[in-house]
Amino acid sequence: MLYVIGLGLGDEKDITLKGLEAVKKCDKVYIEAYTSLLSFGLSSNGLSSLEELYGKSLIVADREMVEEKADDILSEARESNVAFLVVGDPFGATTHTDLVVRAQKLGIQVKVIHNASVMNAVGLCGLQLYRYGETVSLPFFTDTWRPDSFYEKIQSNRVLGLHTLCLLDIRVKEPSLESLCRGKKQYEPPRYMTINTAIEQLLEVEHSRGQAAYSEETTCVGLARLGSDDQMIVAGSMKELLGVDFGAPLHCLVIVGKTHPVEEEMLEFYSFKKA
Amino acid sequence: MLYVIGLGLGDEKDITLKGLEAVKKCDKVYIEAYTSLLSFGLSSNGLSSLEELYGKSLIVADREMVEEKADDILSEARESNVAFLVVGDPFGATTHTDLVVRAQKLGIQVKVIHNASVMNAVGLCGLQLYRYGETVSLPFFTDTWRPDSFYEKIQSNRVLGLHTLCLLDIRVKEPSLESLCRGKKQYEPPRYMTINTAIEQLLEVEHSRGQAAYSEETTCVGLARLGSDDQMIVAGSMKELLGVDFGAPLHCLVIVGKTHPVEEEMLEFYSFKKA
Repeated sequence: MLYVIGLGLGDEKDITLKGLEAVKKCDKVYIEAYTSLLSFGLSSNGLSSLEELYGKSLIVADREMVEEKADDILSEARESNVAFLVVGDPFGATTHTDLVVRAQKLGIQVKVIHNASVMNAVGLCGLQLYRYGETVSLPFFTDTWRPDSFYEKIQSNRVLGLHTLCLLDIRVKEPSLESLCRGKKQYEPPRYMTINTAIEQLLEVEHSRGQAAYSEETTCVGLARLGSDDQMIVAGSMKELLGVDFGAPLHCLVIVGKTHPVEEEMLEFYSFKKA
Repeated sequence: MLYVIGLGLGDEKDITLKGLEAVKKCDKVYIEAYTSLLSFGLSSNGLSSLEELYGKSLIVADREMVEEKADDILSEARESNVAFLVVGDPFGATTHTDLVVRAQKLGIQVKVIHNASVMNAVGLCGLQLYRYGETVSLPFFTDTWRPDSFYEKIQSNRVLGLHTLCLLDIRVKEPSLESLCRGKKQYEPPRYMTINTAIEQLLEVEHSRGQAAYSEETTCVGLARLGSDDQMIVAGSMKELLGVDFGAPLHCLVIVGKTHPVEEEMLEFYSFKKA
């Protein structure tokens, strides 16, 4: 059996009772390392808070490993109980769907244990989840790579009066360009996009596209470390949020669409002016 | 302190460790009864599986009670620890936002403990969450009340190639029309919209609107009892799903937009033809 288990967003205690019971039954426990594991005590190489809680050692699986070793993980799951742990919910990112599809094709039983993800926990800022349009991902711009296909999506959402959740780029274990040229993989230090960088990039794209999908006066909500004890939520115009220090990752950003009165009261509560 | 705690979707073991710790600290524990509590062992009047797990008695709070007694709940939360339990995640429905806004205005500390909700667990069917447009709610049609404002929303989503999550009506503790006329409240038995009824209503509206937002050939995914051991997921055309018996509530429905290959593989896995 392959258990695919969401860990939620905050720390080791955000696992569900059902998830914890499943982990305890497993012979091997993998944990995906695509997103931030900082709050789960996996930033150092020491014994993690997760390992202490589970009484099991964890195998940290980066994207490369999951792609290369998927067959091994799956054949282990055919013979015994294997857990694959995922920050947030298992179905936030494509790659886990891929693992599940492969398992199903091989006739291996899969059990998914859900948890909170940014896709629903963002509701905390008070904007109703059913009033969100398509979610966009903002990638780090480089000198030569400045993809801006998110622009039309934000524009479509705003025309419909919908909110837009912007997921901000995470670069974990990226091979450095220099090392790729040399033919030997070396990794860049992890990078997490801040809300400030996201807004700078958004405004740069608006400046070059010039179709007024949004402006520096557009109301947004910045959310940092959602689900943690020190989470931070600030609502304000893009211009105002540019100057806010949201601290450690992960960050995400909501571009606010048309609002209802209860939504406005919540935004007022998180207003920049009160921060 | 007011703890607003998500219970997740399946059964009593879907609470997080953090949520359970919080409940155990609370002097009073309310549980909202707007959505289905069937899987949490609260269908009968006996000791529920939740009460056994928590070692506390629960106060079941219907919408009326939360609206009428909000002041009492909040003043209790000022003096002591009070938990307000919610099926799914606390920010799926407006009313909880309202309670949180009121608490914040009164200066009462609020701690939200997230969990899975249908808004992210629907990812299980393999359609990527970031490819969903605006969520729609389908209300039960009556002889005199057939609101169809969802039609334009579905149409907008489909023009953009996005998937549409349809949340299906739940009627719990609705006063009967007859009893309202008599001036004495009596309640209808609870009703949960099935996927079949949802599709019938959708096709009826398409028939009268005639703008080809979708048709009986449009691919959909029906999901029943998401997160439970006996959950059921079937993908097929509206016409095909009309004939499927999805069993007990809760049901929801996804109208599929433009798909990517990995999404198609998952839909294939859940295909009607295999059911």
